[in-house]
This record gives sequence, structure tokens and C-alpha cells, in this order.
Amino acid sequence: MLPDLDTLQASLRAGTTSRTAIVEAAQAAAAGPAARSVFLQTSFDEALRVARAADAAALAGQPLHPLAGLPVSIKDLFDIAGEVTRAAAIARDDAAPADADAAVVARLRHAGAALVGRTNMSEFAFSGVGINPHFGTPRNPLDPAVARVPGGSSSGAAVSVALGLAVAGLGSDTGGSIRIPAALCGLTGFKPTTRRVPLTGAFPLSYTLDTACAMTRSVSGCVLVDSVLADTPAMPIGKAPAAIRLAVARQYLQDDLEPVVAQAFDRALGRLSAAGVRIEHIELPELEELPGLNAAGGFTAAEAWSIHRHLLATRRAQYDPRVAMRIERGAAMSAADYVDLMRARLDWIARVQARLAGFDAIVCPTVPMVAPPLDPLLADDALFFRTNGLLLRNTSAFNFLDGCSISLPCHAAGELPVGLMLSHGPLHDAGLLGIALALEAIVRPAA
Amino acid sequence: MLPDLDTLQASLRAGTTSRTAIVEAAQAAAAGPAARSVFLQTSFDEALRVARAADAAALAGQPLHPLAGLPVSIKDLFDIAGEVTRAAAIARDDAAPADADAAVVARLRHAGAALVGRTNMSEFAFSGVGINPHFGTPRNPLDPAVARVPGGSSSGAAVSVALGLAVAGLGSDTGGSIRIPAALCGLTGFKPTTRRVPLTGAFPLSYTLDTACAMTRSVSGCVLVDSVLADTPAMPIGKAPAAIRLAVARQYLQDDLEPVVAQAFDRALGRLSAAGVRIEHIELPELEELPGLNAAGGFTAAEAWSIHRHLLATRRAQYDPRVAMRIERGAAMSAADYVDLMRARLDWIARVQARLAGFDAIVCPTVPMVAPPLDPLLADDALFFRTNGLLLRNTSAFNFLDGCSISLPCHAAGELPVGLMLSHGPLHDAGLLGIALALEAIVRPAA
Repeated sequence: MLPDLDTLQASLRAGTTSRTAIVEAAQAAAAGPAARSVFLQTSFDEALRVARAADAAALAGQPLHPLAGLPVSIKDLFDIAGEVTRAAAIARDDAAPADADAAVVARLRHAGAALVGRTNMSEFAFSGVGINPHFGTPRNPLDPAVARVPGGSSSGAAVSVALGLAVAGLGSDTGGSIRIPAALCGLTGFKPTTRRVPLTGAFPLSYTLDTACAMTRSVSGCVLVDSVLADTPAMPIGKAPAAIRLAVARQYLQDDLEPVVAQAFDRALGRLSAAGVRIEHIELPELEELPGLNAAGGFTAAEAWSIHRHLLATRRAQYDPRVAMRIERGAAMSAADYVDLMRARLDWIARVQARLAGFDAIVCPTVPMVAPPLDPLLADDALFFRTNGLLLRNTSAFNFLDGCSISLPCHAAGELPVGLMLSHGPLHDAGLLGIALALEAIVRPAA
Repeated sequence: MLPDLDTLQASLRAGTTSRTAIVEAAQAAAAGPAARSVFLQTSFDEALRVARAADAAALAGQPLHPLAGLPVSIKDLFDIAGEVTRAAAIARDDAAPADADAAVVARLRHAGAALVGRTNMSEFAFSGVGINPHFGTPRNPLDPAVARVPGGSSSGAAVSVALGLAVAGLGSDTGGSIRIPAALCGLTGFKPTTRRVPLTGAFPLSYTLDTACAMTRSVSGCVLVDSVLADTPAMPIGKAPAAIRLAVARQYLQDDLEPVVAQAFDRALGRLSAAGVRIEHIELPELEELPGLNAAGGFTAAEAWSIHRHLLATRRAQYDPRVAMRIERGAAMSAADYVDLMRARLDWIARVQARLAGFDAIVCPTVPMVAPPLDPLLADDALFFRTNGLLLRNTSAFNFLDGCSISLPCHAAGELPVGLMLSHGPLHDAGLLGIALALEAIVRPAA
């Protein structure tokens, strides 16, 4: 497994490793059994060329972006010039190759990243579990004993980073697709405020909610990659723990936690309090409105139906039936219902923002469970949909808020991963990343 | 009739009139037969109190906003604290009085304007003709011989300014509701880029397209009022005529012009050319897509159905049947069709903006006809809908563009009014107002 980006930079400066060696190691590991189904397509030869050029430039004393020559994986959702963007769907096998890189891919390339391949995902990014019936499901690498799901939809992205095949995994987050797999695989996943990052060249799931973003091994890695994706300087606003004020909602976000998640969350809150962070329990009854607001499938079903209805008409048999069923819920929504939902959301956002005013973030478990075993989910549709709903419950609340949100590992080494999520409303990104930097080490107990 | 705001300011400075005298004259004129059906409710006593206070402040040497103490009318669409906002609909007779002023009403009040009353309009702002079956239709004051429509939906707003009952008429423009009555009544009407002016406290027609704005007697008046409504400094970017480059589309906007409109438009282009303005005919085939894009009623039908479906369920009999029919078209639109329309609009805007790049504005007739006679439109539904479609055709293209657009009189005194419309894409407002200031006198021939 690769260390976090800061440690890697120090090793590169010290000359104890090279970008070429890192990419070579990734290429070797990508061929191993643990990496099965992680990539739908790899490009290690080109990545090695980029890494070697970066090493040479570094030797020559040229200034390099911190990502230059380092392996980055790309979710199959994003255009890469000359390649077909399948979104891990067989139904898009005959799509035309992309004319150009997606905006975020171009920005990663411009920073010098070595793109190592296209990662597997939930078909069309429409599930939080990470199962893909066409290309296999990457196994969660954190449990050698039981085959567990990686979380989704950015399943391959997460496993690529967890296995050290990439320092960062580019993905997307419409309802939690970065934060869920980050939580289940012990990584750090940051969903910025949607509008900060361009979606040009990203295959859409929901025009309203889609966010291009990434997961890495640390908050500083997320800060670095976010600055590339949003094309803004990396400037999180630092804050001492004793000056940080966190809200814990009395409603919804702590419902139905698995005991191990509840314990890890309580332990993290205890460690935060001990470090001087002020933690206040607040009323947030607006959260209880979410199931009702999204009862008809929400923006994602309506917009996915708009996107898929023509392809479904001819190729439905090639869709993951669980995905097709969820998309087809959008067919029943009227324009007026959709307009009502847009208006209700604006009102909801205003009310939630008012309750969060004065706090640095709201804190909750990213997902209420640890990574569930794969096989029962493959066998049982009802279990799949119930699990999917629980996986998405907390994360999707902050997509609906149009907010920013980051999942940090809060489990000890040897435990199954548990994510702690810090979130805020729209455009609080720099402040949120700043407190995440301050709190990251506090919430994670030593082994 | 009141002179334009600049002339009025000069008279006030010279002491040849007073704000009190102006409001008193407006009050007297509002009682005359020409003003029938212009106001649904007046507040001249309060306006006189405001005017007297402004005169006293001016005498005492206090700095005053140029609008202070001057009569301004408010379309029945906007909340005024303590009053019922009926939107000229009987079906809203039992609505609760507004808790607070609409944002734009508060801004006008803060500038010191003397609010003289609530003006009549097309019911729920949903027609460009200006007929209201409940409260009567204000007669277009520009033709003493034939009863002609004032244009709509801001019908009372236009006639209030045309008759000198107000220096500015606050209204709204969703598909042309400021510019159409401005054109038909010989006034200047400016529709800013929608997002520049807050809609809080305005009864909605279309969340996507509604724009709060006003008509006055001159471009400088529009600049002044826009600076109040948008709460921004009035800073149009001036330009010499010889430096101005205008586009004339070969398609759509000059179709089916009444001969008198075609003559006035050609005359205006000739005068602009003679003044050194560069006029270039361009291809703009995107305009021909508009009828197809909006074939199902567009944003307005879908959003109006979302707004009205509950009230229609109980009080449809009290709606103007022509308005109810148009709203009910929105019931058939699916969420996916609505989402498709949003996406198609973004693509359309990008393509049109590319064609307008480098031009200061596109120029066309505001409406293809002079104000039509009232009685045939009252009698004939088919004529009404055909006329309404023609009235809205050119103006609504620039609402769909999310643009800014201004109608200037280009008829000679003694002719029926004809409007010349200058338009551009989103957030070109200052540039557009700047060239309108430069061209206003050129396009209007002396009597």
C-alpha cells in the first residue's frame, strides 16, 4: 500500500523512491488477484512514460506539480480522448470514442498525473454498493477473510487507492459515490460543492447532483487533488481544535448504526472532545423530511430517466436490472412534481443552513455499517435495495444540501473501516478541508 | 404626460415643479376616464406624504435619491406589506395579506419612491395582450380614435407611465411582459438578466424565466430604476455610435411584420447606419428551433402548472379561461421532458452566444405589429391566441436566451408606437444599456 501523498513527496525528495518505481509497483500489483475487476482498461505503459519524464524533470531541477508522475486512476465515467466511456455498462459498448478529455481529466493530465487506467464502478454510477454484474465486483481489500463489497459507485477507484495502484482515484459523488467507498475501504473521500468542479465530459447520472471529485489516503491528498480538479489554489483555512465547533444532529444520521460503527463514532467524538473540540447536539428535524421529499426517486431518477430512456428502449436487456429498475422510477414523475422538488429543495437548504450557522461542520458516521459481505447481496434483491438505501442515507443528505462533505477513517488499524463524515452547506469547502486537516489524526486511534 | 426622469430632475432643481405637484397631478389624472382599469388599488395619500417629505428634505439641502418623492406604480404581482397580492386574479381574493414588501418594492421604497398603487395586468401575468376579464383592460392611450390593447402582461404599468401617473412602472418580464407593453405604448422597457434582480415576494409565473424590471420614458430612466432594483451602481458603458456593431438576424425576428412596423424598423436601421453604427446581417438559425423547443408549452406551462394545480382544482371557474387553458398545457409534461428542455436550453444558449460574440447587441422589432384593436380580441379566441403568439415571439427569444433586452420607441410622434429591441446574452446588461443610451435619440425620428 502506498503512503499518503505528503509522505510520498518526502520520499521522492529524499531520493528513496522514484515516480517510475511507484508506477512500476502499481503495474505489478494491478496484475495480482486482489486487483481483479478494479480496472476495466489500463494504460500503464503511457503512465510509465509520464513517470519517467517527471523523474527526469525532477533530476534536472525543474519545478513539478506534486502530482506529476504519480499514478492516478480514472473512473469509467470520465472521457479520455480516443477511448469509449462505457460507465461500466455493456449497453454503451458501441458508443463513439471521446473526442476530448473530460475537463477534470485534462486538469489532472495538465498537473502531470500518470493516468493508469479506467476503474470499475456500479453501472452508470447508480448504486452505493459497488456491485457490477458485467465486469465483476472489486473485492474490499480490508478483510482478507470474508469477501466484502468495496462500496460504490466508485468501487474500482477506492480499491485502486487502497491497494496502492494509484495515489488518487478520480470518481464522482451524486449521492455518496466517493464517500461511501472511501469509508468502507479506509480512505479519505472529499465531495466538494458541486458547482466548483466542471462536469464536461463526465457521463451524467443526475444533472442536479453529480459532483466530480476524488479519494486519496489523507486530507492533504484531497486538498491537493481538489485544487487540481477545481483549478483553484489549495488554501484550506486552518483552525486549532479548541476553536472548532461541531454539530451532531439528534435526528436521522445516527439511526440504525451497526454497533461497531456506533462504537467507533462515539470513540471519535470522545477523542475530539478531549482535544478541545466543542461538540453540540442540535435539532435538525429537516433530515426527517428527506425520505418523503425523495419518495418518487428524487432528482436522480427523473434525470437518469431523461438520460437513459432512449437507450433503455433498445438495450434494456443489457442493463443491470437493479439499475434499470431504479432509473425507470423516474418515468412516472411529472414536470410539476420535479419543479416542486426543486423549490422544496431550495427551501430545505435555507432551513438547514440556518441551523448550521456558526458551526464549522456537522459530524456523523459516513455510513451506518461496515462493508457488508458480497455474496448475500448478490443473491437477494430486497437485501440489496435495503443495504443500498442505508449506505446512501447519510451521504446523500449532503448532496441534497448542495453541500461539501468529507469522509475520514475513524477506525483503528485491524478494525474494519468506519468513516466519520464532516459536512457543511454550499461553498464552505475551504473551511471544511481546514478542520478536516486539523481533526484527521485525532479521530483515528493508534493501532 | 410626464417628461422623462432627467428632464424632471432638471425641473425639480430649477424649482419649476415639485414632487408634491407631480404626485398631485398624477392623482388627478388617475381619476380621469383614460386611466380606467389602470390601477386595482391606489395609495395616493401615502404617496403624497412621501412626496411632501422629499420636497421638504430637498429644501433643507439633504441629499436625495433621484427617485425620491416621485410616483412609481407597482404591478399587482408584487407583495406590499399588509396588502393582498392578487396577480389580478379573482381566484386569489382570499389570499393572506403579504407579511413584507417584495424585495424590489422594498428597494424602491428605500430609494424614496412614492408608491401610487397596484397596477392591472394579464391575470397571473400569462399573456402578452394585456386583456383582463375581471378588472377591465386599460385602453392604450396612444390612439384616441380606436380602442387598442396596451400590451401585457404589465398593462396597467405601461398605461400608468404613458399617462403620467407614474415616472416608472414596476413590472415583470417572463416572455416579454415589460417590453411588449413598452413597445405598444411608446415607452422604454428594460428586461435585465434574470439573476440580477431578486424575485422574493413576486408571485411566480415561471421560476426559470421570471424577471423583475420596469418601464420608464427613457433609457436613462431604465438605468436609474434598474440600479435600484438590482441594488448596483448605475454604470452603463458608453460607446460612440461609430464604435457600435449590431447584428440583424436573417431568420425569424423579421417574419410577418406589419408594413408599418417594417417601415419603422427599416427607417431606424437607416438612421443608425447614417450615424456610423455598423449593422451586419447574420445567420441565426437557432431561432427557428424555438417553436419546436417550446411546443409543449415550455418552462412557463410546466412551472405555472406546478404553481397553480392546487388552486385550479378548486377555483378554475374563476380563472380567465384563456389563462387556465395555457396553464393546463403544463400538466402533460413529464419530468424527463422538462429536464431535456433545460439541457436543450443550455446548449441553445451556448450556440447563440457564440454567434453574438463581438456584437454589441442584436437588433429587431420588439413586436411585429402595432397595438391591435381590443374588441376583435375580446370576441375571438383563435385571434387572441394567434395575436398573443406573435406579440411574444421576438421578446420571448431573449428570455429563453437568459439574456438582457431593451425596447426603445422608434416611431415618430403621431405614428402608432413601434418598438426597436436591442438584446444580448446573459450579463451583458451594462454594455446593452450603454449602447441604448447612445442610440435612443438616433432611432427616434423627429415628428
